[in-house]
Amino acid sequence: LNASLKIDFEPVGLRGPCQPGISVLECARHLGVDLVNLCGGAGKCGRCSVQIIAGDTTPLTKTEKNILSEDHIRRGYRLACETMPLSDLKVAVPPDSLTAPQRAQVESMESPVVPEPLIRLYPVELFQPGFVDLSSDFRRLSNGLTEKYGIHKLSIDVDVLSELPARLRDGKRNICVGLRQQEIIALTGPDTKPMGIAVDLGTTKIAVYLVDLEIGRVLASKGMMNPQIKYGEDIISRFMYAQASPEQAVRLWKIVIDTLNQMISGLCTDSGVLTENIFEVVIVCNTAMHHLFLGLPTESLSRAPYIPVIDSDLDVKAGKFGLKTAKGAYIHFLPNIAGYVGSDHVAMLLAVGILQKKGVVLALDIGTNTEICLSDNGRLSSLSCASGPAFEGAHVKFGMRAANGAIERLRIEDNMTTYQTIGGRPARGFCGSGILDVVAELYKAGAVEKSGRMIDGHPLIRHMDGHKEFVIAVKNSDQTKSSEITFSQKDLREIQLAKGAIRTGIETLLKANNRAKEEIGQIIIAGAFGSYIDLENAKKVGMLPNISEDRIIQVGNAAGLGSRLALASRTKREEAVQIASQVEYIELAAFPGFSTMFTEAMYMG
Amino acid sequence: LNASLKIDFEPVGLRGPCQPGISVLECARHLGVDLVNLCGGAGKCGRCSVQIIAGDTTPLTKTEKNILSEDHIRRGYRLACETMPLSDLKVAVPPDSLTAPQRAQVESMESPVVPEPLIRLYPVELFQPGFVDLSSDFRRLSNGLTEKYGIHKLSIDVDVLSELPARLRDGKRNICVGLRQQEIIALTGPDTKPMGIAVDLGTTKIAVYLVDLEIGRVLASKGMMNPQIKYGEDIISRFMYAQASPEQAVRLWKIVIDTLNQMISGLCTDSGVLTENIFEVVIVCNTAMHHLFLGLPTESLSRAPYIPVIDSDLDVKAGKFGLKTAKGAYIHFLPNIAGYVGSDHVAMLLAVGILQKKGVVLALDIGTNTEICLSDNGRLSSLSCASGPAFEGAHVKFGMRAANGAIERLRIEDNMTTYQTIGGRPARGFCGSGILDVVAELYKAGAVEKSGRMIDGHPLIRHMDGHKEFVIAVKNSDQTKSSEITFSQKDLREIQLAKGAIRTGIETLLKANNRAKEEIGQIIIAGAFGSYIDLENAKKVGMLPNISEDRIIQVGNAAGLGSRLALASRTKREEAVQIASQVEYIELAAFPGFSTMFTEAMYMG
Repeated sequence: LNASLKIDFEPVGLRGPCQPGISVLECARHLGVDLVNLCGGAGKCGRCSVQIIAGDTTPLTKTEKNILSEDHIRRGYRLACETMPLSDLKVAVPPDSLTAPQRAQVESMESPVVPEPLIRLYPVELFQPGFVDLSSDFRRLSNGLTEKYGIHKLSIDVDVLSELPARLRDGKRNICVGLRQQEIIALTGPDTKPMGIAVDLGTTKIAVYLVDLEIGRVLASKGMMNPQIKYGEDIISRFMYAQASPEQAVRLWKIVIDTLNQMISGLCTDSGVLTENIFEVVIVCNTAMHHLFLGLPTESLSRAPYIPVIDSDLDVKAGKFGLKTAKGAYIHFLPNIAGYVGSDHVAMLLAVGILQKKGVVLALDIGTNTEICLSDNGRLSSLSCASGPAFEGAHVKFGMRAANGAIERLRIEDNMTTYQTIGGRPARGFCGSGILDVVAELYKAGAVEKSGRMIDGHPLIRHMDGHKEFVIAVKNSDQTKSSEITFSQKDLREIQLAKGAIRTGIETLLKANNRAKEEIGQIIIAGAFGSYIDLENAKKVGMLPNISEDRIIQVGNAAGLGSRLALASRTKREEAVQIASQVEYIELAAFPGFSTMFTEAMYMG
Repeated sequence: LNASLKIDFEPVGLRGPCQPGISVLECARHLGVDLVNLCGGAGKCGRCSVQIIAGDTTPLTKTEKNILSEDHIRRGYRLACETMPLSDLKVAVPPDSLTAPQRAQVESMESPVVPEPLIRLYPVELFQPGFVDLSSDFRRLSNGLTEKYGIHKLSIDVDVLSELPARLRDGKRNICVGLRQQEIIALTGPDTKPMGIAVDLGTTKIAVYLVDLEIGRVLASKGMMNPQIKYGEDIISRFMYAQASPEQAVRLWKIVIDTLNQMISGLCTDSGVLTENIFEVVIVCNTAMHHLFLGLPTESLSRAPYIPVIDSDLDVKAGKFGLKTAKGAYIHFLPNIAGYVGSDHVAMLLAVGILQKKGVVLALDIGTNTEICLSDNGRLSSLSCASGPAFEGAHVKFGMRAANGAIERLRIEDNMTTYQTIGGRPARGFCGSGILDVVAELYKAGAVEKSGRMIDGHPLIRHMDGHKEFVIAVKNSDQTKSSEITFSQKDLREIQLAKGAIRTGIETLLKANNRAKEEIGQIIIAGAFGSYIDLENAKKVGMLPNISEDRIIQVGNAAGLGSRLALASRTKREEAVQIASQVEYIELAAFPGFSTMFTEAMYMG
């Protein structure tokens, strides 16, 4: 036997040596691939499944045959804890086998796109002015571009123009001209690479990507909380804040700009890129963030029927809005669809290639508002449902965001609870996927009725101060004394409302399109929370319809990916406009039978 | 005889009753038409000549036959003091028969132009949004424009967009959309008239015109001193001030913006127009003012070879530069030609219709820098000569600007001096036309040699403190005691330099085009000073070549007129671009034989 084999984990992109006799799970740990495992590698929880793409392994064990589905086995899935390499291996790790932090990392991975940026750089060499050639600086520049590239009828941003003399003198006669269609938006030194910034500007989280426009690849990315949270957790309270006075509206805008500039600077520094070489910005966001960013009035967005000021795509000068980029750079906003279906939804649909999908496909991005699209062979209808912030940890006593110490996976077997926390740190509360697991596992364990009522007398349920709750004993962070994390009947009702809203959205779209859930060919789940959830449990609580799991895919931050595609490719940008124009928007609350559907959707699945 | 006839003075546009037996000069006085007359209506000075266009008058007197040229008599010229009406009269007053203030008024008169504004207003009626129509505000607006006018593919200025919701709600559903090509630049209430502002932004003086874009007519105009003067009388000192620090550059820009806003507000208030209904601004100026306004670096403009950053025409957002107009309005800058030949020269050439001229035509705008163009059957060449500020009163002891109390006309006959001041006020000094008259009249009276030397012992010349000077006794403003206004040998040398520079420019253009002065078909003199001067005397001192006076026309502020034409008509705007591109710029100082020509040009004519 070979003492040193090689193993390659994709799409994480981590690879290194491995040995026969050492499980794939151990190899993964060694290389820093954080696979989920609740049972500590005992072959019990079935959470560490991976797909063997290439190479030989030890044969399928009895344990694996019991836990893995036939379909999974046929497609090469194995439990990492039960499998040992016999040759070099290439292993694909499905998103839900990765822990949250590593999945967040995978989120910003590449999707291949043919680079077709709107901005092109043209190097030119110009002669110094003198009595022989009295042409203006701009004329010499235009003539240079005409002679070398046949480009005519150029215009120039006046702020860029003011930089022109310095670029042409002091011996710097080799310059690069950044052209956006017919407009000169930047002047840089020779050998500049054109960079772009893609932004997914969420109500809660901001993701920023630095993209090399020439090759269409992400060089670096950064995530941060949206600092507007301090002026209101939800959009309505931010609207109220902004509407109170123009100064407050400016403050709300300014804090986002400062954060974006800080993130952009950080990314540029890390990658050795100058901010002046950022030639284009694409921002995707919900319609509310869009209006707040652009300083558009939000009054009509904040009350029914939630009419946006604009839904078309829009180009504005980055400088006008205070972003630190090339002087003449634009921000491109993808189109919105409605007051509660923004360009982030369009970007998600772009990223999943919705227009190329056949059959009946559902695509949803779960958040405080969950936007769902149903494509019936390319006929698109979308809606938004108010799923609330429960899955982000709000309104749930021990709810928390996906941070270190959050329970992200939980199983109950024979009334025994096992769980896993983010970062392996002492448990402090539940993040969204943990909350979903709690509800599903309690239901499976018979501790909760189909209606959502906790069952009196069930060993997992206790009475406390007049209310019912489920409790886990946990070790405190000082590791010495035990503490309790609880999940109450009231918490459970919050989750029922949230998952019920999502399910109502799905059912409404099926009904509007006259389709049954059996006809769904694929469900695509986007967004951070949606990518972390246990699909089986999502079906168990009735959030998703009960369809075969191999027809459900989790795609991570697809809105962010969509923003990068629109940044890198003008074809993709046009496709986004096409998607937005094809979507028929459905107003959920006005849909016939809404209340009945919502009541039914509250039940366990 | 009819006791009450009617008389109409054009182009002043003043009309009213007149009587037989009362001279046209008296009629003019009565109606407020300020005709020049040095002799008090005695038929001696010949300055009050007017042209009778229609109607009968008393016959030509012997005095008139002595004073008026045969050509003038043939063309119906009369002395207003010698002529009395016999029927209703229509009288044309040539510019040099008007006193300066009234001529300044005439300057802003109309030139017929077919209105073809770049901006059009489209009234639309829109329905309130609601659950039936969930379209965004912008979509409803675009659809409204498409349905009613077939206009597609609209874009909108983001500042205008922010006004849209308020315009569409509160019952204001009838709105007017201001469109500039495909861009919505303004939203206004119904029945709005589109207005524009034309600006002639001079180094010394700013002229602003409020123009009704629909009919292409000036509604009101205002002139003001350029407040930048306090940071430097001439361009070079302003450059130095601006280059010292960015703060100073901003200060220089800000003071002009504030003045323009003040002038625009004033014009709008006077005419009952809202500044938000100003949809376009056209600015013409010299290249230096252009760069200072736009915040472009001025370093290369301030030293040889005086390369501008840009010479092309340029559109910038008025809001970006702080002008109070419709939110999305643009400022259009006409093209420049060279560092010292700016868009004001182009505007002047546009106003005089240079492209339509046949033969050899000279067009000049006299100022601190005098720009001269020679058109040889449409082949244009232009240059700038540093004529200096002497004609604006600087560098001349008793020099002053054309203000009340300035001697604007002066005659010497039999060594007796008569003069006329602006506003008929006690004399305080000489304005440009008065200075020119002094030099010419001294030369004609034999008090000055051809070389410019004042002749010792001539009764008009006295020695004082070791220098020679000409002196006029004037009454002080308290009308009690006499005072003196003098014009020294040194003053005369300054004027020689100034007029010599202009003449050198003319000779250089003739030489460059291989033309003799006899071939000049027309000389067009534009600008305030040029319109006030006595042509005979301008030839006498040698500033202008000695050609027949009926081939010389004075056209007032043609640059201002050009700015109005470019504002009112897109065809005229294109013509301006064509003019600028056809002009061959000649660098005067680099022209062969420059020094010799300049020395010769210093002599009296």
